[in-house]
This record gives sequence, structure tokens and C-alpha cells, in this order.
Amino acid sequence: MKAKTAQTGTVGQAIPRTEGSAKVTGRAEYVHNLQLPGMLYGKIHRSTIAHGRIRRVDTTAAQALEGVHRVVTGEDIRAAVSDPHYGPAFHDQPILAFEKVRYAGEPVAVVLATDPHVAEEAAARIVVEYEELPAVFDEVEAMTSKAVVHEVLKPAGTFPDLKHLQGRRNTNVALDYRLRRGDVEAAFKKADHVFEHTFRTQQVLHVPLEPFVTVVEPGESGVTIHTSSQSPSFVRIEIARLLGWPENRIRVKVPYLGGGFGAKLYIKLEALVTVLALITRRPVKIALTMEEQFYTITKHAATLRIKSGVTKDGRITARACEVWWNGGAYADIGPRVTQKSGFTAPGPYDIEHVHIDSYALYTNLPPAGALRGFGIPQLVWAYEGHTDMIARALKMDPVEFRRRNLLVNGRPQATGTVMKDAAIDTVLERAAARMEWGKPCDPGTGTIRRGRGIAIGFKASISPTTSVAIVNLYADGSCALYCGTVDMGQGSDTAMAQIVSEILGVPIGSVTVVHPDTDVTPYDMATLGSRSTYHMGHAVRLAAEDARDKLMALTREVGLSAETAPIRDVFRKKYGMQAGNIVGTGTFIPTYTPTDHDTGQSANVTPFWMIGATGAEVEVDTETGQVRVTRLVNVADAGTPINPRIVETQLSGAAIMQLGFTLSEKMEFSAGQCTNASLAAYRIPGMLDIPPGIENEAVESAERGGPFGAKGVGETGTFGVSPAIASAIEDAVGVRLMSLPITPEAVFRALRAKQGNPLKDN
Amino acid sequence: MKAKTAQTGTVGQAIPRTEGSAKVTGRAEYVHNLQLPGMLYGKIHRSTIAHGRIRRVDTTAAQALEGVHRVVTGEDIRAAVSDPHYGPAFHDQPILAFEKVRYAGEPVAVVLATDPHVAEEAAARIVVEYEELPAVFDEVEAMTSKAVVHEVLKPAGTFPDLKHLQGRRNTNVALDYRLRRGDVEAAFKKADHVFEHTFRTQQVLHVPLEPFVTVVEPGESGVTIHTSSQSPSFVRIEIARLLGWPENRIRVKVPYLGGGFGAKLYIKLEALVTVLALITRRPVKIALTMEEQFYTITKHAATLRIKSGVTKDGRITARACEVWWNGGAYADIGPRVTQKSGFTAPGPYDIEHVHIDSYALYTNLPPAGALRGFGIPQLVWAYEGHTDMIARALKMDPVEFRRRNLLVNGRPQATGTVMKDAAIDTVLERAAARMEWGKPCDPGTGTIRRGRGIAIGFKASISPTTSVAIVNLYADGSCALYCGTVDMGQGSDTAMAQIVSEILGVPIGSVTVVHPDTDVTPYDMATLGSRSTYHMGHAVRLAAEDARDKLMALTREVGLSAETAPIRDVFRKKYGMQAGNIVGTGTFIPTYTPTDHDTGQSANVTPFWMIGATGAEVEVDTETGQVRVTRLVNVADAGTPINPRIVETQLSGAAIMQLGFTLSEKMEFSAGQCTNASLAAYRIPGMLDIPPGIENEAVESAERGGPFGAKGVGETGTFGVSPAIASAIEDAVGVRLMSLPITPEAVFRALRAKQGNPLKDN
Repeated sequence: MKAKTAQTGTVGQAIPRTEGSAKVTGRAEYVHNLQLPGMLYGKIHRSTIAHGRIRRVDTTAAQALEGVHRVVTGEDIRAAVSDPHYGPAFHDQPILAFEKVRYAGEPVAVVLATDPHVAEEAAARIVVEYEELPAVFDEVEAMTSKAVVHEVLKPAGTFPDLKHLQGRRNTNVALDYRLRRGDVEAAFKKADHVFEHTFRTQQVLHVPLEPFVTVVEPGESGVTIHTSSQSPSFVRIEIARLLGWPENRIRVKVPYLGGGFGAKLYIKLEALVTVLALITRRPVKIALTMEEQFYTITKHAATLRIKSGVTKDGRITARACEVWWNGGAYADIGPRVTQKSGFTAPGPYDIEHVHIDSYALYTNLPPAGALRGFGIPQLVWAYEGHTDMIARALKMDPVEFRRRNLLVNGRPQATGTVMKDAAIDTVLERAAARMEWGKPCDPGTGTIRRGRGIAIGFKASISPTTSVAIVNLYADGSCALYCGTVDMGQGSDTAMAQIVSEILGVPIGSVTVVHPDTDVTPYDMATLGSRSTYHMGHAVRLAAEDARDKLMALTREVGLSAETAPIRDVFRKKYGMQAGNIVGTGTFIPTYTPTDHDTGQSANVTPFWMIGATGAEVEVDTETGQVRVTRLVNVADAGTPINPRIVETQLSGAAIMQLGFTLSEKMEFSAGQCTNASLAAYRIPGMLDIPPGIENEAVESAERGGPFGAKGVGETGTFGVSPAIASAIEDAVGVRLMSLPITPEAVFRALRAKQGNPLKDN
Repeated sequence: MKAKTAQTGTVGQAIPRTEGSAKVTGRAEYVHNLQLPGMLYGKIHRSTIAHGRIRRVDTTAAQALEGVHRVVTGEDIRAAVSDPHYGPAFHDQPILAFEKVRYAGEPVAVVLATDPHVAEEAAARIVVEYEELPAVFDEVEAMTSKAVVHEVLKPAGTFPDLKHLQGRRNTNVALDYRLRRGDVEAAFKKADHVFEHTFRTQQVLHVPLEPFVTVVEPGESGVTIHTSSQSPSFVRIEIARLLGWPENRIRVKVPYLGGGFGAKLYIKLEALVTVLALITRRPVKIALTMEEQFYTITKHAATLRIKSGVTKDGRITARACEVWWNGGAYADIGPRVTQKSGFTAPGPYDIEHVHIDSYALYTNLPPAGALRGFGIPQLVWAYEGHTDMIARALKMDPVEFRRRNLLVNGRPQATGTVMKDAAIDTVLERAAARMEWGKPCDPGTGTIRRGRGIAIGFKASISPTTSVAIVNLYADGSCALYCGTVDMGQGSDTAMAQIVSEILGVPIGSVTVVHPDTDVTPYDMATLGSRSTYHMGHAVRLAAEDARDKLMALTREVGLSAETAPIRDVFRKKYGMQAGNIVGTGTFIPTYTPTDHDTGQSANVTPFWMIGATGAEVEVDTETGQVRVTRLVNVADAGTPINPRIVETQLSGAAIMQLGFTLSEKMEFSAGQCTNASLAAYRIPGMLDIPPGIENEAVESAERGGPFGAKGVGETGTFGVSPAIASAIEDAVGVRLMSLPITPEAVFRALRAKQGNPLKDN
């Protein structure tokens, strides 16, 4: 442990997770474990209808149950908070429903009791009378439906591109994003071929194995919110806004998360539990059941129409994309999905003429927000299916067809942004090489047919967002990193500690990562969009470098050698004993050019690009429609990994998650009521569903703007999975599935339709 | 809330304590409230003898009691920690006694159980066989006694002036501090008069109403120590040393303290509870009873011999002081008391020839350490009694006699340090004026006689010590101060928040003071010696100024006006939303010149001087010896107060505490066993003991080196109380008490002795 500039740290090494032993020994902290003296448990009574006016909330029977402390309704919340609507994009979501309910499952009242079972039983005794209203569930129908979810639009004011919607009435369109580049219609006329396809994706769930949980403690001069959240800084600022308090009266503490995947962003239970704690002046805990997660936040179902003009030698000259995002009853971050992902709807291809129309729609379904990929897997499902279908129609090899159209560094993307440090070609070639694309595939025999497919996608990272970090170096050379990034299983604690270790030249064990606590850890926009390694990694690097520079200056000041003096000697010489600190700070915000609202153009839409390709080999049972994925090759441009082992588990984890969305997961609804809201009925992948031949590769690459050449990788593995499998199925049995999930029934019906079977086709 | 440099804050205002409402509503956090899942309670078995070898510790009966988890002995501790000795000055105190016990009450074993009552019962069943050794209890006898408490001295290595004692054997002298200025013997020969007196003070207790309590949680990669401590940074560093771990594996968290007064410094329960938690791998709590506080840490009894040469016109020309400090069985911080206070033993007088010998002694009593005043009240007891007795002998007015000898700014103190910003003369004059010293005092009638006295003392602050602070400014203009100062009732949170508020120009309610947590709050030497306002106040000021300067720079960068732009606009312009932080840091260490070991001379022994005078009026009942203090005037130089209301409560609180030590409190011993270890038998002042005429005044003054002209004041009110009361008694009834406490019995005996009564005199 020397006060030297030589980087003797651990960046680039596949060291084990620093929190691993805490997790396997049960010492890791989660909010679910937290119990406070005098704490009340809240249980939520939820709407039984999809759309209607609340006529009366009868809490008599609930209140009468022995052990019930209090029943709180939407009207009680309104009495406590002047405008009880929250949301990151629109202030549209009430803390508890009042006047109207907008989806089946929406919270209407809460029972508080010291015994959660009493609270649960009482919640069931609440009777709500509704006047039902017409409902709309389909995202395309929502464009023109007379069933209007919100009477008036209330953008949060945070995003400039939503401001023009302020006060708009009688519409379900929460955002109409458009991008125009070149003249698509003229190009279609000139094209040798024009192809148009429509794809659909289903509404699915994040399924963190730790359900939502929030505990709020009313404190000396404010509240402390212990919550399973990916966005502690947002929670603080949004609760401060709701209550009209300064930020310093709200403390948000986040320990480990048992998964997040985008579900635990913005406000989920936090506003409700905070107001309950303030009303009762008691600590209050609400922990959702697995079933209740289905009524909280989901992933957008989408309808995607894509149309391309292509020359006879396989150059795509024009592409028009229309995307309808089913946002459910509250906007959450849906409008940003619509815009931020929308602009990559044409895919990672170099296309001269591009039109994009992307619509965020309100419907009477549970709200949809961010889910690993933030809309990208839906888009890739469409554009890579479309791309493969064109190649097949042109009788070209689908990889070769992609090669001819690939967007390379130095060329502008649809937004006008010139690509850089985006190894799209390398990723595609590595995926093809690993799949031995040049060699023929065993087609199978009998009823088991084999095929393979490949798909590639890309994603821009969120911008502009800010991260701040503090490194506090102690007098013995160990240190603490104050860091607002939430370690929800992705290994961020380890990666951040590696960066500090590298720059200060101290062992990884000498770096304590202080978990998010808004009274302590400085601002971070949120842990989302694979932004942490890049943004917070930068801030951490800057903070560590600041500390190192100050250490060097102090070493010179006390007359010791920067090459050989142990850190503890420097402090001892300065302060006469083991005393003092060196505090380094770092703030990172990428440079950014705002997007022009009329054209959707920007010279700089993203700090970095994520690129992922998937190769899939499948076996299809033509008698049952059963699809078995025998091989799943995930290739990514993750820049230069800080920790290659963590990058690999991120790739396989993302791919397996997307595998569930591809083959089995779907929220089913009847009149807006989810009919499979349990993990028995809604099947996520189990260990036996993992393909035997799963492979992951981060290609050799460097993000020159990233810390140590790194970039984010949390979502990349999801991009290509669904279309690669659909193309592999078509390769195997000649049917193309256009909707997710690809269930055995859907494959079976498609096969029957192809054979002219009278069963209705998919 | 503007981004401006104008100081619109609250420094100098008597605003109410920021934590007041939390305390009166029961929301304030204390370690006693902390319960953790799976927590074990520890109860201590203590030595029943004052000095002896441990032959055998029989834990069979204790272990057999149902519900006992484990019994841990000194040998178990030795097996877990290679050298289990701790201490700030000497590594002399074992975590649990082994081989030897050195005082009655010393911890020998601990029983752990989930039920504290079971643990207590089992602890009583432990049987220890001792081989008793001769014991020494008196500090003067300890100089030459053959009963040796420690076979060999082991200085901690922290203090250079203890290094020469390393390895010294067969001595109870833990430090022999000496100071030589001029030629005392020659001056005595030349003097018109030479006076010599010997004074004594008793062993007393801090009596924080919150007894010692520590909870240790074994964590992911280290331990979290929740403790009622005044020195979280020291606890971290000392536990790290004991375990051989880096600092970052040890987290020390301190909420509010229910009083400290110097008791809760350094290591008390922390090492023991930490090792118990590591041995059992369970959270462990030990909360002492009020009785057990008597066996933990006390205030030094002392014998003080003082001899002065005086001219006939009342100039003191030479003074020799010998002080013997009864340190008890373990040094704790006693050697620093001996040295740091020792050099002010001649008092705040301008004396040409000074000799000081100050001895820290081991005895077989409970250890003595720091207690509000750090030795000064003992010294003032001697030199102000001595001064008054000389004035009386010379038939001079005692205030006038002091005036002729007072040390004024620009003149050197005994150490050679030239006085500055020390309002000794003003403090004396204000005390005299408030007492209407020029007017005669009503002498009383009959058996109730009245008298008055005045006394003045001074204290150097500790040096050199370091404080570090971080100010984290949020995007809405509110902020957090990360500050390691422990608010133990003295109001430091309020004062520190006032400094931040002043410099950033934000309301006091917008400043959150984050309580000590060594993973979060940076280094602070400790909350002791009235150093916080000066040292931490400086660090906080520097941190806030750093934040302010960065805010100004950012305001300029984004093109806004530093005069009018709200802070939130600056952040919003920079980061595009309510995002980001500005982090300011400040480190303060006063300049310092080491003391020469041979002469005790230093050009700069203290960052600032504390000066306090007390005027007392008493009524003495000549029939019973009962003393009633009717008026107590406390005057102090506190520099320019940050918060005058807090300064006033510090003055009165200190004076009332010293009143208890003056009139009633004394630990009684029989063969080294404390015989009055309860608050029934050991009487601290109650509400009815507070003098009806208590007055406090901080004189107009400014410490130019202090933040906003402030200096520390936590101890100043203690200085003059005891000798002022003794002089008032002599003024009333003509007897001089030379030992504390001045009980009715002592006064009665002195009166009888004066009247030639055969009862033995005091």
C-alpha cells in the first residue's frame, strides 16, 4: 500500500464479487429483513375493475376487525398531500386512486395493522362501489378509442420534449415521437423491392425475486425511506416535491436489491408508505406479494409496423417504422421508452431515408415502464425479423445481407449522430464465427427439425445524466467510496471498488463501498439503462483521481517520496498520528446535444452504444410445436470490461431473461384483469430451461469515452434473443412467428396453417 | 435561498437546539434503543478484590444455567486476539482480566444469553479463585509503594513524551512530567514571604444518565460498532489495531449521547463487545448498569502541594507545584491529564520562576481519565485556595491580589507560550463587578453566617488535533454536513449547522447534520476538551467555504448571477434537471510547536485558552456545618459565541456539575471496593441543589484564531467553583477546607477544631 501513481489495482481482472460471501452466508442486508419498533404493516385493497368512477369506499367492516390500526383511502391521502400525483414523465399517478380507477389491480385503500395477516384480512373486507366506464386495452385501438384513460395530460416538466403535451385533452397519446431523415416515400418508389411486416410483443413482468418493499420511518425532522429502489436520488427528489419539503428532510436508504430489471425505478411504494407514516406517525412497512407485482409495473406490449425499400443487390435504401407502445394506465417512464428507444427502430443499419413514428399510449392495463432493454428487445424483435424475412425473400444469406447494410463507425445513425466506438461489425462477425455460419446446419430428422438464426441489436445509453462520487481515504490507506449506484445483483459494488483500487493502488479489500443513502452518498440519476459502469464509473474514477492527486500533493508537502512512502506514513507525518482524511470528489455528466423536436435529429444522442448479437440453434418438434433451444451464443460490445466475469454473467443473465419473454412469459388478461398473476401460471425460465450450449463473449473493443475503456452491458444480452430464435424456427420448419411469446401452441398453429390445417393460424 | 456570498445565516444567534423537539418527543436515537435480530446480551463478572493473581475461573455453574449461550473469559479473549491490551496512552488494559486483576470491579468474565436476566444470574454464579497481592490506593504512597500495579510500562507510542518510559519496570509512575522556568529556590530565598499548602481532591464519577452501552454487529467483511462514544474515530483505529485489520473493515456509529463528560472516550466496552461478537458470530450488546459505571472510569483524585514566594507588596515571584494524580489501575488518558493540565498548575498568574512536577500514578482503584476540565478543577482548587490564603495572610483583598499578578496577553505563560486572546483580566473584573465586590457583604446573623469568594482558572486546549468535515450541497439548496463531532447534549449539531447556514446563506432547517459514522463522517480526533467548536467548527467552516466557492464557480460557468440566482437554478442549468451535488471539504489542524521534554517549554502549547471565573455567596450553618450556596456567578471567556444560549447552558451545566464535586460527591472505598456505587449513596446535584442566584456571562471577547471568533466553553464553568465556595466559607466562618468534598461533616469538624473542640479536625 504505497502512495504511488503506479496502478497496481484490479481493473480488468475477473475477481469474485465482493458481496458474494455476505449473500451466501445470509448476512447481506435487504429491506424485507427490516423491522422497526411500533411498525405497522400495510395491505392494499385493489380495484376489481379496469376503468370506472369510484362512488363509495366502505371501510366499515375493515375498520371493525380487531387489530386494525387504521384504514386509509385516496381521500385521506388527498387531505394530507395537496397534489398526490407522481411520475417521472407525467404527474399522472395518484398515491391511492380517488375519483377514478384506471386499471384492475390499482391501489384504492390501505389497511394498517401491527399484524400483517390482520391487515390482509381487513383489506379484503373493504367494499368499493364503482360506476364502470368503457375501457381500452389494445395500444393501436387506444390511438382512436373513445375510452379515454386520462382526461388531461400533465407532463412532469422534466423532459423538454413532453412540454407541448401540457394540458392536451381527450387523448390516450402520451407522446407522439417522430423522426424524419430523407424522403422515405420517394425512396420506396425508387426501390427494387418494398417489404412491410407487422410484429407484436406481449406484456410481461420483471419478476425480481425480491418483491417491492418499502419501510418508512418518521424521524426527527423528516422521514427515512428504506426501500428496494434502483433510484434513491429520484425517490428523494420526488417525495420532496410531493411534500413540498427540501431534499435534506428526506433520507432514502437502499441496501442490496434482490433484482430490479427496471421495475424498481422512480416511485413505486415510496410515496404511499411515506404518507401513511406521516399520517400515523408510526413506521410503516408495505411488502408486496409476488401476485401484487403483476399490478405494479410491467414491460410494454407493442405493435411494430416496419416497411423497407431495398435494391436488388440487397441494400436497404429506406425504412419507415411505426411503433405503438402499450403504456397501461400510467405513463411511468413509457414516454422515454417511446422516444429514447424509438429512434433506433430502424436497427443498426446504414439507411439513407428513415421515418419513425413512435407512440406512447395510455390503456386500462397495469402500467408499463422500463424493463432490461428499455424497449430495444421489442424493436429488435421487429427489425431483425423483418431483416431476416427480406434476406429470405431475396434469397440472400441473412448474415451477408446484414453485412451489406451495417452501420459502421463514422457513419450517421438515423438521428444524425455519427457512430463511434460501436463494434457492430465485430459483434456480428464474432457471433457468425461462433455459430460456424459458413458450415451447413444439421437439419434434423423425423419430427425433430433443427435450424439456426442470428440477430443483432443496438441501444443508445440515456443522456444527459449525472453521477457524483466521493472517495474518502483513511490514514491507514484503506478507504470508503460513497456511491449511489444500487447493487441489485449486477456486481456494481465490485466494479466500482476495482476502479478505486486501481487508481489508489490499494487492495480491493481496503475499499468499502457505502450503499445508497441520500444523506451520505451523493447524487446519482439512477441505476438503469446500463449507465452505471460508464457514468458512475467515470465519477468514481474522477473522485479517486482527485484523492490520489491530493495524496501526492500531501506527500510532497511533508517531504516524503511519492514512489516509496506508505500512505499511513504520509498521514502520520502530517497529523502527528493516525489521523485525518483525504476526500476526493468526482462529478460526471457526458456532453450532450439536445434533440430537435421537429426532426428528431441530434449530433450526439448518446454517450455510448451497446451492441449485442445472438446466435440460436433450435430443435422444433413438428408434432407438438415444442421448441428446444440447444445453443445460445451471446456476443456483445462491452468495451473493455472492468471485470470480465461479471460481464459474462450479465450477458447470460440477460439472455436467459429474454428467453423467458421469447418462449413462455405473457400476462394474460380478461376484461383488463390479469388471469395468470402467479409464478405457477406465469412461467419464468427455470434451471432446466437454460440452453445446454450457452456461450458468452465480450468482443475486443474499447469505449474511448468510458472509464478504462468500459461501457455498460446489463441489457445487451437481451437484444437478439427473440428474433434469433424466430429465425432459427423458420430455418428449421419454415414458419415465421410474428408475435411473442413463441409458445408450443403458437408454433403448432403456425405449422398447421402452413399445412393448410383448418385450425385458425397465429 | 440564493447563490450569494452575503452571510444571511444564523451565527451569533441564540436559536433553539435543532434536536430539541426530537428529544422531548422521544424520537432521538440512542444505542440503548437498538435491538438486532439474534442479539446476545452480555453481563460482566467483576473482580471482588483490588489486586491479585487469577488462579482459576470456574464457569461451570454459569454455563449450566438454562438459556446461557456462552461464557467468555480473559483466556478466551487472548486466544482470539494476539495482544488484547488497549489504551490511548499505554497499551495496559486487557479486554478481560487475565493472569492478574488490578482493581475491585475489573471485568473478569462475560456471560452471553438472549435474555439479559439469565446472563446476569449466570454471571453471579461464576467463581474466581485469586491469590491476593498487596494493594496501593493512595497516589502519594504509590510513588514508593512496593505494591506494583504493572510489572512493566507499555506506552502506546502515540505520545512522544511517553516514549522514554517504554519498558520501565517496578514503578507505579506512569508519567513524571516536569517544567522548569527560572530558579525557584533562589527566588524563594529572596522572597519576603513563602507560603506552602497541600490540597486534596477526591475520586468522583461522570454519571452520564445514559450508562455505557455498545452493540456490535458482525457484518459482511468486518464489524459495525454502535456505541455511546465520544471518540468514534479513535474506536475505529484502536479496534483496527487490536484486530490487525484495515480501518475500512470497522464501522463505528454513534447516535446521540445521554451525556459523556469525558467518560465515553477511547475504548470502554467497544473492544470487549467486538471480540464477543466475533467469537459468537452474533450481534452482542452490553449495557452497563448505573452501578457498573463506578467500575469503569472516574475522575482523578489528586494531592497538590503548592509553594509560593511573594513580595511584601503582593507580587508572586516564584511558585513550585507538585501534583500526584491517582490514575487507578489503568492509565487511560491520565498521563495526558498529568502533562496537559500539569503545565498550568501555577495558575493564570505572571510568575517569573516556576517549577512543576506532575506525576501520573497507578493505584489499585478503578481507572481515572478525562472528566470535564481534564485536571484543571483539581489544579484550580489548589492554586486558588493557595492564592486566597496568601491574600488573607497579607491582609490584601483577594481580587486586588490577583489583579497584581494576573497573566495578561503578550506575557509568557510558564511554558514560555505568549498569551493571546485570553481575556483573563476581563473575566476577573466581570466576576468581581457582578459580585459587587466593592460593597461589603452581609455577614449573616446567629448560627447562619454569610460569606463570599471568587476564583479564576484557565485551561489550554488540546493540541495538535485534526478535524475533517464534508458539506454536500444538494440541487435544491439544502445540504448535509458529515461531521464526526458527537452531540452528547452540548448542542454541537446546532452550532455546526449554524456555521454551514451562515456561510452558504441557507436556512438552518436546510442543513442536515449526519451523525458520526466512520464509514461516512470523516476523521475527527474526538469530542473532548472543548475542542469541537474551535477545531471542528474550523473544518466545517472550511468545508462550507469550499462548497460556496465551488457554487460560485459553477454559477459563473453557467452564466447566472451570483447575486440573485437561486441555488436550484444553478444546478438545473448545469445538469438539465434537479441533479448533482457540490461537495466541499475542510481539514483543520492548528499550528503547533512540540514541547521540549527537558524544560517543558514550548512557544505554542495551545490553539486557544479557556478562562473561567466563579463568584460564590454562601450561608454556613455553624451548628450543622451545612453550606447553602445562595449565589453562583459564572463568567467565561468563550470568544464570540456561535450560539449564546448554548454557551450559557454550558456554563451553568458545568458549574452545577462542579458544585456536586465540591459539596457532596465522593467515591468511598474499603480495601479498594467502592462502597457507595449507587445514585442513592453517591449524591449528584438535584434540582433543589441548584443555587437560587445562578448567573452566567460570556464576556465580550474574540478568539482571532477561532471560527467567527469562537472558542470552546464546555469545561470553563467548572474551573472556579470549588475554591470560590471554599473561600466564601472561610469568609463566612473563618475555616479553610483543604480537601474536597466540603461536606457538612467536614465543615462541622473544621469549626469544632477552630473552637478547640476535641473532635478530630478535618
